[in-house]
Amino acid sequence: MNLNDIHSPADIKGMSVENLKELSAAMRQALLTKLSATGGHVGPNLGMIEMAVALHYVFDSPVDKIVFDVSHQCYAHKMLTGRMKAFTDPAHYGEVSGFTNPAESAHDFFTIGHTSTGVSLAGGLAKARDMRGDHENIIAVVGDGSLSGGEAFEGLDYAATLGSNFIIIVNDNDMSIAPNEGGLYENLRLLRESDGNAEPNFFKAVGLDYRYVAYGNDVATLVDVFSSVKNIDHPVVLHICTQKGKGYAPAETEREHFHYTGPFDLPTGNPRSMDEREDYTDITADELLKMMAADPTVAAITAGTPGAIGFTPERRKAAGKQFIDVGIAEQEAVALASGMAKGGTKPCFCVVSSFLQRAYDQLSQDVSINNSPISLPIFYGSIYGMNDVTHLGWFDIALVSNIPGFVYLAPTCKEEYIAMLRWSIKQNKYPVAVRVPGGKVVSSRREFPDDYSELNRYEVTQRGKDVAIIAAGSFYGIGEQTAAALKEDGIEATLINPRYLSGLDEPLLTELEADHRVVVTLEDGVLDGGFGEKIARFYGAKPMEVKCYGIKKEFADRYNAAELAAAMRLRPDLIKADILKQLCKL
Amino acid sequence: MNLNDIHSPADIKGMSVENLKELSAAMRQALLTKLSATGGHVGPNLGMIEMAVALHYVFDSPVDKIVFDVSHQCYAHKMLTGRMKAFTDPAHYGEVSGFTNPAESAHDFFTIGHTSTGVSLAGGLAKARDMRGDHENIIAVVGDGSLSGGEAFEGLDYAATLGSNFIIIVNDNDMSIAPNEGGLYENLRLLRESDGNAEPNFFKAVGLDYRYVAYGNDVATLVDVFSSVKNIDHPVVLHICTQKGKGYAPAETEREHFHYTGPFDLPTGNPRSMDEREDYTDITADELLKMMAADPTVAAITAGTPGAIGFTPERRKAAGKQFIDVGIAEQEAVALASGMAKGGTKPCFCVVSSFLQRAYDQLSQDVSINNSPISLPIFYGSIYGMNDVTHLGWFDIALVSNIPGFVYLAPTCKEEYIAMLRWSIKQNKYPVAVRVPGGKVVSSRREFPDDYSELNRYEVTQRGKDVAIIAAGSFYGIGEQTAAALKEDGIEATLINPRYLSGLDEPLLTELEADHRVVVTLEDGVLDGGFGEKIARFYGAKPMEVKCYGIKKEFADRYNAAELAAAMRLRPDLIKADILKQLCKL
Repeated sequence: MNLNDIHSPADIKGMSVENLKELSAAMRQALLTKLSATGGHVGPNLGMIEMAVALHYVFDSPVDKIVFDVSHQCYAHKMLTGRMKAFTDPAHYGEVSGFTNPAESAHDFFTIGHTSTGVSLAGGLAKARDMRGDHENIIAVVGDGSLSGGEAFEGLDYAATLGSNFIIIVNDNDMSIAPNEGGLYENLRLLRESDGNAEPNFFKAVGLDYRYVAYGNDVATLVDVFSSVKNIDHPVVLHICTQKGKGYAPAETEREHFHYTGPFDLPTGNPRSMDEREDYTDITADELLKMMAADPTVAAITAGTPGAIGFTPERRKAAGKQFIDVGIAEQEAVALASGMAKGGTKPCFCVVSSFLQRAYDQLSQDVSINNSPISLPIFYGSIYGMNDVTHLGWFDIALVSNIPGFVYLAPTCKEEYIAMLRWSIKQNKYPVAVRVPGGKVVSSRREFPDDYSELNRYEVTQRGKDVAIIAAGSFYGIGEQTAAALKEDGIEATLINPRYLSGLDEPLLTELEADHRVVVTLEDGVLDGGFGEKIARFYGAKPMEVKCYGIKKEFADRYNAAELAAAMRLRPDLIKADILKQLCKL
Repeated sequence: MNLNDIHSPADIKGMSVENLKELSAAMRQALLTKLSATGGHVGPNLGMIEMAVALHYVFDSPVDKIVFDVSHQCYAHKMLTGRMKAFTDPAHYGEVSGFTNPAESAHDFFTIGHTSTGVSLAGGLAKARDMRGDHENIIAVVGDGSLSGGEAFEGLDYAATLGSNFIIIVNDNDMSIAPNEGGLYENLRLLRESDGNAEPNFFKAVGLDYRYVAYGNDVATLVDVFSSVKNIDHPVVLHICTQKGKGYAPAETEREHFHYTGPFDLPTGNPRSMDEREDYTDITADELLKMMAADPTVAAITAGTPGAIGFTPERRKAAGKQFIDVGIAEQEAVALASGMAKGGTKPCFCVVSSFLQRAYDQLSQDVSINNSPISLPIFYGSIYGMNDVTHLGWFDIALVSNIPGFVYLAPTCKEEYIAMLRWSIKQNKYPVAVRVPGGKVVSSRREFPDDYSELNRYEVTQRGKDVAIIAAGSFYGIGEQTAAALKEDGIEATLINPRYLSGLDEPLLTELEADHRVVVTLEDGVLDGGFGEKIARFYGAKPMEVKCYGIKKEFADRYNAAELAAAMRLRPDLIKADILKQLCKL
């Protein structure tokens, strides 16, 4: 079978079930070859090949509409919908994103990258179809791991009231990114063990029709099941069991590691390269383990992404009950932490910047209005973080620092990060977020204070005149280099590490007015709603000239960080040129 | 029975069940007398009297900890915990808030006002107790209406894994603010009709032990039930049926109206005063009904608060299937709207500013990254909106306008609001939010464009020089009055209606540099992350002086809007004085 002959779902419609099996096998081989070279979401996609084949065999995409929740399990779907070469030809590997993408194909309906949204989005398509008076099938594919997110529940609850065609496929591989956590998963286990017959049944309990499919990697079974629900006149859940990592022994065994991995050696599954450099996830987890050992009320919390914050299975074991995984449920993580802080313990919710967006109201209401002293290390809040459009870490400064009462700290190096992290946990006065620096670990070998409770005191690391550079967090280095470059032209700039993204050091800023004419701000995030604008407003009615550097308010997809920085003039040579020009103008 | 003899739960511990009934009756009478004078959450509280009495009789608050979800059903709890006079003595009526409040009493653990958070917060207290090695009872009280919110589901799902004492009371009065919507409620009905014996059972399905109590307004029953679970060693759901509005015929009948009401005549239940003035909720609903009649693909969506957006039962009936209530589930409302827009219909999600906070990630990911052209009228985004600390409408400018791709419009009067609302629904290019003006309806009798697709074009309503006042939305009137006041001193200011909160009219702002020295911005929201800061950044490196007026970043509770405005110098006379001072300085 030549995969490159398949240009659209039409090309598989005439196949026999035996052909479909061969097709699945060939796709699996191609997928493994590509993923071993590029990395990606290995486990979820290997488990979904037969499902994608059967879906496109039975349904008529894109008239029938398939929505993949989180969509990191859509590779086989992409292979069947005009994008085969991106999986079979190394020269084309880079041409598709790792998520569904309407810009790539009419078979993709949404750009998705956060979990638990698919049922709601597809429910909207179903409702629209009914209002338009049309009759196509609407299909949502959602993984068991995504069901812990509140939005998925809201979506199921509403779906039950639709009263029209809506096929919700629960792809149950008995695994989230890490093992599932939550009472619901006990019910899924019970359903798997009873061939779907047990009571209680979660899906029936939210008002949905329900069918159980034990062999979700058997294409013949799937074709039968999908055919039986095609054009169904009401919402139905198909609870389909698949195997994460199906058909590749290392991925079947090491399911958490192969959820998402870099390039690997195909015969053994070993990583192609081991990055031995320390990173901020290891630094965080090691520091938290030390603090847990010293104080039994310290707890680390994750919302389903332990690996992204350094908590490997070994470290989780070491932490014992002081490590809490609430499942993919950021709202719960934040509110639980607030309750724990009020209950006299020291919760530290470690979270990825992009995913923290799912808990804005909890940060404001459950935490900040209640002044709950939680610790909140925020990872990948940086242009050097994840670069898919759905995972940008650019918005957390505006998100967190504008909530009254929240203290948002921006450490500039490893040593300052550890000092701030430790203080955020030890103190009990404020909710404190710490922006884990982006990019490679920077060691300054400087010593830092162990107390940050006197808020909004910026650190002047170099006192000069005329120009002050306020360089926050990961961009402190750019500030340092800019100051050094200015020195070559005889300009002794003042260099400031603001430390606090959530407030102004008004006495210092006022003091600068005496012998400075230009203030430059640097921040590793979007300018709109960010740190620099607060400085600009402070000096608004004064003669000080303020230039803010950061990222323009826009979405970018799979960008190159260096190119993005240059486009935003976030480079010491460019900033120096701007400063010189500004000084001449004055 | 003299209610004023009850100063703490200790004062009811020795009572007989008969006494407890008398106490409940006396409390109900006092509550009705107060609420008829002050207004408040009538229905929820009347239904909760026996529950509060039995809880405080059986458990030992504040060692045992009771957390009320949403907490607008905590009045009886307040009466029993040292705050009786605020319910029996008109001179003290104003001394308590309408929600739990740790500043009032050690028996209140959180300031809560948004739904669906109680199980998570109480779960945190339970987890903290276990980590501390203590053994008190932790009790969460959550209404059936709150269960549609994703955070409540996340809380239940995690609670099931606690493995220790946690008592979750589901107070089922078969009613949200309006009638419940969602598949889950079919299950609650089934459970009520089967005395809790039916399968499926939602609570068992998320892994929780379950007990059903049919008579939740019978204090003897409740004392027995609570005694039976006191010190239980695992999480349990008590599904307790109560009657919304219990004991007051008008509230038992008109359950939606009496969920929350102003002062009323006790014998009849009629409102003490009828406000006959038009308001923006009526204007919105009437306008949407017109658009629905003309186009069957226009749909209005609410997340459980139809009344707050003008959709009375009569108007809901008129809208038919074009009105969608997803229950209290803002994430679902936003994501569903995105799907509907992509599916070719015209969804309009009408939402209260404070509650929109619960869907930030959906606005960003589900809508804006996908450029779904939804319409989003945002109500009570104003200092003239709701004034409880949990319901402030001050943060939506920073929330919405900093999301790339979102167009956020700020109409200045009724006529401009209608024009913008209509355009937001008719257009299909952008996600468009419209900030419904705060305060009384202002009619300008001016005509406004019917197209806003050329983004970020501000309207110059008066062309002067030296000073430009950019006055957004509800604060346009303050800008107009300030300009008039300046005229008395011979200063012809330029007055600008920016219309767009989400972007800058850079050509206009640049043009102003020619003959203006001071720019003043006015916005009805928090300055941090808001509109004015963008203007300040734009002019940062230029000689223009910028002064931003808006609200300081802080939480305020039950504030007086006029006093707040004055404290922020948001008054024409004060702004004029500032401008004169600034002009002298230059």
